[in-house]
Amino acid sequence: MELIYKGKTKDVYRDSADDNGVVLFFKDDMTGKDGVFDPGENQVGLTVEGSGRAGLKLSSYFFEKINALGYPTHFKSADLDSRYMYVHPVETFGKGVEVICRFKATGSFIRRYGAYIEDGEQLDDFVEFTLKDDKRQDPPINEAGLVALDILQPGEHDVIVENTLKICKLIKEELAQRGFDLYDIKLEFGRDIKTGEVMLIDEISGGNMRVYKAGQKVDPLELVDLFFK
Amino acid sequence: MELIYKGKTKDVYRDSADDNGVVLFFKDDMTGKDGVFDPGENQVGLTVEGSGRAGLKLSSYFFEKINALGYPTHFKSADLDSRYMYVHPVETFGKGVEVICRFKATGSFIRRYGAYIEDGEQLDDFVEFTLKDDKRQDPPINEAGLVALDILQPGEHDVIVENTLKICKLIKEELAQRGFDLYDIKLEFGRDIKTGEVMLIDEISGGNMRVYKAGQKVDPLELVDLFFK
Repeated sequence: MELIYKGKTKDVYRDSADDNGVVLFFKDDMTGKDGVFDPGENQVGLTVEGSGRAGLKLSSYFFEKINALGYPTHFKSADLDSRYMYVHPVETFGKGVEVICRFKATGSFIRRYGAYIEDGEQLDDFVEFTLKDDKRQDPPINEAGLVALDILQPGEHDVIVENTLKICKLIKEELAQRGFDLYDIKLEFGRDIKTGEVMLIDEISGGNMRVYKAGQKVDPLELVDLFFK
Repeated sequence: MELIYKGKTKDVYRDSADDNGVVLFFKDDMTGKDGVFDPGENQVGLTVEGSGRAGLKLSSYFFEKINALGYPTHFKSADLDSRYMYVHPVETFGKGVEVICRFKATGSFIRRYGAYIEDGEQLDDFVEFTLKDDKRQDPPINEAGLVALDILQPGEHDVIVENTLKICKLIKEELAQRGFDLYDIKLEFGRDIKTGEVMLIDEISGGNMRVYKAGQKVDPLELVDLFFK
């Protein structure tokens, strides 16, 4: 298969068996610093055997649930042994946008807004956008900025916020049923390259969320083990 | 008069002649660093005799224009010799919010979004909110954040954006008629303490805007001199 893009935790290939298909290969690399996992970090901090497969397994579980509810996603199917996810090709927004849904205030939210809220306090229906830009520490951006910089078309912001809230509440509920507390999660969206439809892309794994159980942070691999037990 | 609040560039007094009045005293202190004026700075950087009077003169000119058009403001009247502005009492939003309208990308906009736009490029209808928080470098915040942190009530965001665009286009036009190019400007809004109506507060002077003439930055005092020539 032809490599299109080499990412931090995934590589992207053209699907040799499908002209309109793309394949994501889930690597065993995780974001973090000095060997400690951190979903807020912008660099590969550790390599853990089995983390790629675990991320793909949890992602596939959630994508299937979301597809079944009719919210558009890029997900077609997955093969856990080869660590491949088969997806619809999409164009990303600008150089990449992250959509963060927060249920409890922590991390960069506290670094920015700590004058108004304590770490761990509850948030309702909070969604924000940040630009993928390691050099500028993934700056937050509002709807007017996303449109002014031609990253989103007018109207796309509200569609993304609405879908993000529905999807993240589903994920929060799935986790809660197994005793996990979802603090925050980052999603990515893109446009179907044929229809332009806005759809959920990337992955939905422990690497993109902060999850607690009985007051203790649960790391991505532990999450998958406990989730499917 | 009883001092209510000592600000960086203005002091706030209760109006001894009016139970429902507040008086702002315009000081000769300007924000900046190492003696150089910068509207983006959070500290007093220089003291210039006559700057308080000049700021009040320009502010009064704009507030009278805005009041005449019927957009709500706190402005009642001004006395240039005493450097007093007589205003309606308001409550501010949280610990203070700045509303920035940008016509050309520069300053913190480029520091955040420089991957997408060059310094000096045009922006249309761009408004953003930042929190007044020196310790956290005045972080930008979106509508969901302002509501989640109970800083704005639902609906107030859109009223402020709409009024900001109208007011800033008026100011830009007034400046353009005299050969000035307005790059960006920060406004403040508050709620009338009696009616809760959202209104423009604070000042509208060179200290709150970046203005150019023939490609050269115009400092706040020079702006007032040239504006009223």
